[in-house]
Amino acid sequence: MAGAEWESLEQCLEKNLPLADLREVKRILYGKETRELHLPSGAFEAASKGDFELRGYGFEAAEEQQRRPRIVRVGLVQNRTPLPADTPVVKQVTALHRRIEAITEVAATCGVNIICFQEAWTMPFAFCTRERLPWTEFAESAEDGPTIRFCQELARKHDMVVVSPILERDAEHGDVLWNTAVVISNSGAILGKTRKNHIPRVGDFNESTYYMEGNLGHPVFQTQFGRIAVNICYGRHHPLNWLMYSVNGAEIIFNPSATVGALSESLWPIEARNAAIANHCFTCAINRVGEERFPNEFTSGDGKKAHRDFGYFYGSSYVAAPDGSRTPGLSRNQDGLLVTELDLNLCRQVNDIWGFKMTGRYEMYAQELAEAVKPSYSPNIVKE
Amino acid sequence: MAGAEWESLEQCLEKNLPLADLREVKRILYGKETRELHLPSGAFEAASKGDFELRGYGFEAAEEQQRRPRIVRVGLVQNRTPLPADTPVVKQVTALHRRIEAITEVAATCGVNIICFQEAWTMPFAFCTRERLPWTEFAESAEDGPTIRFCQELARKHDMVVVSPILERDAEHGDVLWNTAVVISNSGAILGKTRKNHIPRVGDFNESTYYMEGNLGHPVFQTQFGRIAVNICYGRHHPLNWLMYSVNGAEIIFNPSATVGALSESLWPIEARNAAIANHCFTCAINRVGEERFPNEFTSGDGKKAHRDFGYFYGSSYVAAPDGSRTPGLSRNQDGLLVTELDLNLCRQVNDIWGFKMTGRYEMYAQELAEAVKPSYSPNIVKE
Repeated sequence: MAGAEWESLEQCLEKNLPLADLREVKRILYGKETRELHLPSGAFEAASKGDFELRGYGFEAAEEQQRRPRIVRVGLVQNRTPLPADTPVVKQVTALHRRIEAITEVAATCGVNIICFQEAWTMPFAFCTRERLPWTEFAESAEDGPTIRFCQELARKHDMVVVSPILERDAEHGDVLWNTAVVISNSGAILGKTRKNHIPRVGDFNESTYYMEGNLGHPVFQTQFGRIAVNICYGRHHPLNWLMYSVNGAEIIFNPSATVGALSESLWPIEARNAAIANHCFTCAINRVGEERFPNEFTSGDGKKAHRDFGYFYGSSYVAAPDGSRTPGLSRNQDGLLVTELDLNLCRQVNDIWGFKMTGRYEMYAQELAEAVKPSYSPNIVKE
Repeated sequence: MAGAEWESLEQCLEKNLPLADLREVKRILYGKETRELHLPSGAFEAASKGDFELRGYGFEAAEEQQRRPRIVRVGLVQNRTPLPADTPVVKQVTALHRRIEAITEVAATCGVNIICFQEAWTMPFAFCTRERLPWTEFAESAEDGPTIRFCQELARKHDMVVVSPILERDAEHGDVLWNTAVVISNSGAILGKTRKNHIPRVGDFNESTYYMEGNLGHPVFQTQFGRIAVNICYGRHHPLNWLMYSVNGAEIIFNPSATVGALSESLWPIEARNAAIANHCFTCAINRVGEERFPNEFTSGDGKKAHRDFGYFYGSSYVAAPDGSRTPGLSRNQDGLLVTELDLNLCRQVNDIWGFKMTGRYEMYAQELAEAVKPSYSPNIVKE
């Protein structure tokens, strides 16, 4: 396995394939080609100076008579943690705020309307250590913590909806932790929050040590730029989680994640894209980059020796459209900003063509599932 | 779009990529590499003589102490209709029986235990015409029609479970048509039947002209070689359909399909594979190949002129494993037999690692779906 240094699938294909073949490969892998978006040259200069990748793509919809195009630009941010994990907590958070501030500044010059950061973006993904301190000190209030106030400023300054996934400390309800995303309106007001509905117990991602399954259901946030929802990380493996956001009306579902190469890289291009197809909506898959080393060694339940890191986050953030097409992924190893222009009209257009909601037979499934969860359920197995 | 003559994604990549890059591309696209299966040289000779592609791959599972490996070989058959669609019905059916007999013969020499043919395999996929005769004459009894009797002979002769998707005429219940798959035990007995649960109204696939949504739920068939289910064609777009087969215990879900290039080719590698991942089971995606021309012209609801075909079926049949890995696809344009060796123990092993069933929260979804289907349901939308 070449590991983190291998840059991206797209770069490899573009370098090696004859043009006519490349077109076919892209069509089969990605569907209808997404057009490159013209972004200001100043943005590319700022990105280059700031050492992060900047890419822009656009999805189109057919013209309609009764609705105008509903053009929205979303920004996906992937980044490494800039300071070592043993730096004092406040210093790490501040450095991350500065990093995100700079990237958001560029997003603003690119006309981004909705920006989403990676899962638990204010901290290293330290849950593999199973230690409490200092990691739980990264948790903060989803209503008035320093990160939320910081995001409110960003939102107001740039007239931008900000989706901010954090480790939440809920002091009012038993002082417990949650894996939460706060949605901040472009007015600067907190629109609400949503919590990670499915918690992994996989390899180094035994996060139930820290927080439990979300208790807020499947809220969808009506923003000025469309209806959005947030399916956090491991929830992407659960088709029903995507479905319920879609049933509640989500046109764009963000999937801020933190996942590593050996575990999930071959699943990554499949799941969020399948969700976009199955639910006639846009999905935005975001993963962090880099390796994070922790002060104390830990084991991974895989029979291997104790170690201080758990492999590399492979970035590769991308946007998938309801027609099954998708953008190329960002780099596997560099910080990046992916700007994507969507015409939200595409959701209903694809819905009208493919009709999965119309043909979904949800009533049957509600009944079958209600039966299936009973401990006495006897599966429908036909024997000779 | 290069169309049907472009052979396959895998061939293109193998021809053009340097070996080290090819390995990475395959890892990211396909996950863990599937080993090539050693098949008898006589089988390759017979395939070459019979003008169909033969490929073999194997998936492995870890050794366990309490269970022996449960090795099963499945065969996926993709084929074109050998005779023009205006040939008399019985001649067409007979030619298809002969074709499938020959391919099954080769499958037997490859040690195949369970074979599955493509959707409505005894006929051209004539539903685009919306004409009744002669197409409805391809329908037959799922209990004692000539095709079922033919399949029973195959099953007995080769000690092979046969999954036979046909157009069913249910003379006992209103003489209606169904899109059905009959599962025949390796003993030759009919194990049972299952029906297409979701019917498309997409482009040329307005099949509800002929048959309605299946009324048999999500049966799983306990065969000597493992528990299998059949998700027919358009049902692959519905994650809940896959889920219920899996909840009922399916270890292998076959997805016999008939779908064309312009419509769905970029969705094809995504959906069945996502289902294998999401449900910790093997999925087998089968599509026919070739172009089928019909005697009378018809329109496609796309503003284009009347025509006599609806594009090419792109083959590309493949098997996906619960760990997200998959076989390469069969050819896009040639008849083929894909032999794949599975160790069914992999299903539970992946289940124990990723735990989607354990973390699935089906009770919550049963309730949410039950609410959502009420006409009075008010979606969970948060506004400023």
